[in-house]
Amino acid sequence: MATTGYHKLLQVGTKIVAVGRNYAAHAKELGNAVPKEPVLFLKPTSSYLENGGTIEIPHNVDSLHHEAELAVVIGKKARDVPESSAMDYVAGYALALDMTARDLQAAAKSAGLPWSLAKGQDTFTPISSVLPKSMVPDPDNLELWLKVDGEIRQKGSTKDMMFKIPFLVSHISSMMTLFEGDVILTGTPPGVGPVKEGQTIAAGITGLVDTQFNVGKRKKPGSS
Amino acid sequence: MATTGYHKLLQVGTKIVAVGRNYAAHAKELGNAVPKEPVLFLKPTSSYLENGGTIEIPHNVDSLHHEAELAVVIGKKARDVPESSAMDYVAGYALALDMTARDLQAAAKSAGLPWSLAKGQDTFTPISSVLPKSMVPDPDNLELWLKVDGEIRQKGSTKDMMFKIPFLVSHISSMMTLFEGDVILTGTPPGVGPVKEGQTIAAGITGLVDTQFNVGKRKKPGSS
Ligand SMILES: [Mg+2]
Ligand SMILES: [Mg+2]
Ligand SMILES: [Mg+2]
Repeated sequence: MATTGYHKLLQVGTKIVAVGRNYAAHAKELGNAVPKEPVLFLKPTSSYLENGGTIEIPHNVDSLHHEAELAVVIGKKARDVPESSAMDYVAGYALALDMTARDLQAAAKSAGLPWSLAKGQDTFTPISSVLPKSMVPDPDNLELWLKVDGEIRQKGSTKDMMFKIPFLVSHISSMMTLFEGDVILTGTPPGVGPVKEGQTIAAGITGLVDTQFNVGKRKKPGSS
Repeated sequence: MATTGYHKLLQVGTKIVAVGRNYAAHAKELGNAVPKEPVLFLKPTSSYLENGGTIEIPHNVDSLHHEAELAVVIGKKARDVPESSAMDYVAGYALALDMTARDLQAAAKSAGLPWSLAKGQDTFTPISSVLPKSMVPDPDNLELWLKVDGEIRQKGSTKDMMFKIPFLVSHISSMMTLFEGDVILTGTPPGVGPVKEGQTIAAGITGLVDTQFNVGKRKKPGSS
């Protein structure tokens, strides 16, 4: 099946469940403890941005960070799924960016407030087309990479994920039912950093998929 | 149109944007500052529970609190909507409970972590049928009430909301596009508290809608 058919999966999905600090080296670069169980947060599907689109920096955000991540796309309803059969519920994979307003997140963290505005605004989840599972025989050994204006910033392997895909599907499905088209973002390898208006982000999974996104300012209503 | 037609709106929705601390008296009862701008967080639509259903307390949760709230149901795509036309994007209203694992939330707050597991698990958003906007001429003057086992616990008026509906629709739509069926939970009046297995919650909007929910334990896979 063509990847375009799989891309429609994202249009039926109703949530994005994202994992924080799933690569020990990234947890350390932000000064965070390595968690004993996954740090989970939600992003809305309204934050998706298709390949080729423009990431919009909101006017009150000074530090919008890129986080390249492997996205796991769910193929059918999953509730209380055991790890042993969890992969049956995975339809495919994508490369996604978990764009993060690091200044808003830092303020939220110190005030004990939710991360939703730091993580969930429009264009904060750029995502590639969906690769069917059959094209990805070993999701635990994929190289993720990200460049800003042609310069490499992130390169890492999914083999360094602390919580693996079957565990994540099982664990999340024990608390929140997952539906067809829902997405799990599996965390980012080290190398995160800010992007500025006018820059270009390229990111991909080596040998499987490439994406490119422009970075601009959030447009105000009435402006052209 | 019958309210059942409107209830289908919830099935097409893809997100719930919830407002915290929107009633000064509730912010104070939890020892929180009254915010200068709305505290926003996301709940997934997988957390909906229809009237008559059973709220499931997860096994690791000791303190699951009820929060009765006015739900605003969006009728069409809203992005960068000005306050002056914000009500054109509202299709109707419902009574919802923003069930909150207060112990998980307290732990998340002190660790600077997201609220998603405290707020977003299955059955954590019990909700009534949707009342079309035409049935609710003055949404800023509704009485919300909630009883546990017949005893009144929450009673408040939407006139005490600090951030009003047109502001909330406009403000949220400037950061996250709202789509048909998306829901804004507008915060809870004072009187929140824990519920236990075997109790019954009744809640409503005086003169408009009543709901009733049972409280049970989260079922484990394989258990009947
Ligand atoms: Mg991330
Ligand atoms: Mg959602
Ligand atoms: Mg609430």
